[in-house]
Amino acid sequence: MSKPTPISGFPEWAPPQRMIEQYVVDRIRNTFELYGFAPLETRAVEPLDQLLRKGETSKEVYLISRLQEEGAPSAGEDALGLHFDLTVPFARYVLENAGKLQFPFRRYQIQKVWRGERPQEGRYREFLQADIDIVDRDILSSHHEAEIPLVLGDALGGLPLGGADGRLPILVQANNRKILEGFYRGIGLADPLAALRAVDRLDRIGPDRVAALLAETAGATDAQAKACLALAEISAPDPSFAAAVQALGVTDPLLDEGLAELVAVMENAVAHAPGLCVADLRIARGLDYYTGTVYETQLRGYERFGSISSGGRYDNLASDGNLRFPGVGISIGVTRMLGLLFGAGALSISRSVPTCVLVALADEDRRPESNRIADALRRRGIPTEVSPSAAKYGKQIRYAERRGIPYVWFPGADGVGDEVKDIRSGEQVGAVPDVWQPPAADLRPTIA
Amino acid sequence: MSKPTPISGFPEWAPPQRMIEQYVVDRIRNTFELYGFAPLETRAVEPLDQLLRKGETSKEVYLISRLQEEGAPSAGEDALGLHFDLTVPFARYVLENAGKLQFPFRRYQIQKVWRGERPQEGRYREFLQADIDIVDRDILSSHHEAEIPLVLGDALGGLPLGGADGRLPILVQANNRKILEGFYRGIGLADPLAALRAVDRLDRIGPDRVAALLAETAGATDAQAKACLALAEISAPDPSFAAAVQALGVTDPLLDEGLAELVAVMENAVAHAPGLCVADLRIARGLDYYTGTVYETQLRGYERFGSISSGGRYDNLASDGNLRFPGVGISIGVTRMLGLLFGAGALSISRSVPTCVLVALADEDRRPESNRIADALRRRGIPTEVSPSAAKYGKQIRYAERRGIPYVWFPGADGVGDEVKDIRSGEQVGAVPDVWQPPAADLRPTIA
Repeated sequence: MSKPTPISGFPEWAPPQRMIEQYVVDRIRNTFELYGFAPLETRAVEPLDQLLRKGETSKEVYLISRLQEEGAPSAGEDALGLHFDLTVPFARYVLENAGKLQFPFRRYQIQKVWRGERPQEGRYREFLQADIDIVDRDILSSHHEAEIPLVLGDALGGLPLGGADGRLPILVQANNRKILEGFYRGIGLADPLAALRAVDRLDRIGPDRVAALLAETAGATDAQAKACLALAEISAPDPSFAAAVQALGVTDPLLDEGLAELVAVMENAVAHAPGLCVADLRIARGLDYYTGTVYETQLRGYERFGSISSGGRYDNLASDGNLRFPGVGISIGVTRMLGLLFGAGALSISRSVPTCVLVALADEDRRPESNRIADALRRRGIPTEVSPSAAKYGKQIRYAERRGIPYVWFPGADGVGDEVKDIRSGEQVGAVPDVWQPPAADLRPTIA
Repeated sequence: MSKPTPISGFPEWAPPQRMIEQYVVDRIRNTFELYGFAPLETRAVEPLDQLLRKGETSKEVYLISRLQEEGAPSAGEDALGLHFDLTVPFARYVLENAGKLQFPFRRYQIQKVWRGERPQEGRYREFLQADIDIVDRDILSSHHEAEIPLVLGDALGGLPLGGADGRLPILVQANNRKILEGFYRGIGLADPLAALRAVDRLDRIGPDRVAALLAETAGATDAQAKACLALAEISAPDPSFAAAVQALGVTDPLLDEGLAELVAVMENAVAHAPGLCVADLRIARGLDYYTGTVYETQLRGYERFGSISSGGRYDNLASDGNLRFPGVGISIGVTRMLGLLFGAGALSISRSVPTCVLVALADEDRRPESNRIADALRRRGIPTEVSPSAAKYGKQIRYAERRGIPYVWFPGADGVGDEVKDIRSGEQVGAVPDVWQPPAADLRPTIA
């Protein structure tokens, strides 16, 4: 067998990185649960026709087929594809199980998704997402839109990402599609969606080309294009953005509704976590299915890589004709975020294994004795390995050193006279397996 | 959109079941870490030629292809398939990263795998596996084979599965391929592997048909077939099996080596967890790549469904010609085990959401006040939701009841006079958000 090689777009973290990922995911999950979101996992596959409902994404889908299937795999009626996000499967799950669920239904979902995109920095073909959504039947109160960014702030806010200035490591940019659509309508644009798509490209192509695009695709006059760009330039860390919008002199009922909703989002954010959110009127979430508040999230110091967490309110994603299930949610791109942080060396871990103690071995015949010591330590929650061989103690200590295991335990004779050595300081003290306790900071690997 | 339907073989647990699954997986993971196994996740896909190295499994593989790919997806050189277990990807990972890993390398891996098999009870097309393996370079000491069942016993032994008789909920059946091959060779069978395959079918087809198969495929005489069956009938909860094997009067160096190794496994198991292991000489793990100890695991009360966790020692799975990485491991079929337990109603959870407290809402204008109370409770680790609407208190209490949320918090006026009600007992007491603490048993959902 020749040496295997990586597959582009399918990242594999080394165990220390995986431990960091687990730490981050545990934190996210714990926060989601603190807010009362219940866990869900959906199957990895969906019927292809479900996945293609949003036409734009069809190019990204991976089909699956059984190797021994009769005939060539096809994109036919029974075709299955790997999910490319967790929102489409969730909408399907809600429709399928509506009769069994309690509404409003708050769920979180942390799973891999797959996209056949061309891989590049921060873009993968297989990656981990962590989503929350709240859906209700028929009507979803808009206060839920104000809750979502707080959950995100708590989930990612405490990550140990430098930030000597005490700032949160993330900035949630919020807007509301009703503001954009109402404003565009208010200035007389016939195709607000076309305008929205043009403005959505502002960061990438700049104001001049957006103005040209607005003229071309939305039939905007110079004055209308200017107004759109003026709106997009508004940004504030508090509800004051609303006065700035109103100062543009446009009136429209949908605009007013959107302003009130975004004001509520900002008021809640300021009360809960000052500096977490900015109302940024250029955020549009282009072609997606959003109908109210929209969110994007910058990782401070990595702004140029774009959003690491985005979402919004969607009124029409889950509907079977009779019943409608409006929802709001956000998705954290865990792999994307960690890829950037690992690339920058911004996160490290204190050791490469969970092990806190290595029990040394005087000779192979005394392994049962070392096993008993390890048992006693594990029973009290101390991660422990027994030395794989009865090599010289120096070699056993190097086994621990190479993995960052902080303690080596030397069994005494006949169960008495045990000693434990902190191999960082060299300090060695007498110890009893049923009693000895490492400092709390050494029990598990720590992230810095 | 018409009502979606389940896809056979791709199970989706409801959120309460998913909470149970998380509890079980957390327990497994914690145990793996207590034994010093480091976490790893490999990508979901492998090159098809890697997946087909074990020819027998080719029928089970799912191919993936990009929808927009030129030409029909093929099983050609670049073809990718979804992994069908975690051992083959792990062996590939070790070869690919050998230069960066510390050996012996202890890793665990908890991931979904996919097989295109016909679904049936306890058999799925998508399922979760939890694996541990220890690999070394060139030589792997056999004491590792004695460690594996202990990890399994600790990971699954404490699950709340009835067992009023105090027995562990699992029974690990261990054997050693060297015993079987050495014994078959010792009685003069020319093709020990053919004999092994025949004996492996004992549980399914019975002794008479195994004897016929032994004659047919391994050229066994009546006496040889009888000896094979006599060996297969030996079973003991301790090292005494060895004397029973020796009493059959067969001698062979490989047999002796296998006996010594299995004795060590049983001695270690008896010392650590009496009743966890049985030496069962009929266990063979048929066509797999095992070369030493092999394990299967019965879930007590569900024996008829077969093994829920199996594995063994493999000497030749990871090798690039020059370097060889022998290993030993075991895989827990988490979805399989939970599918059986859910089907029997053997596991339940105390509520259907993580939420411990629902903060009630007197009217919508006072939501910020209820949000502040929720914040204070969450900061102290108490999962809390705020009522989605300012409906009558009776309706808000029913919101909690339907989800099993044990406490409803009633804000007083202006931040004083708050009360909290245990809606199970009806008891209502004064409470302060920064101080009140639920009983530990109510903090998180509990599994019974």
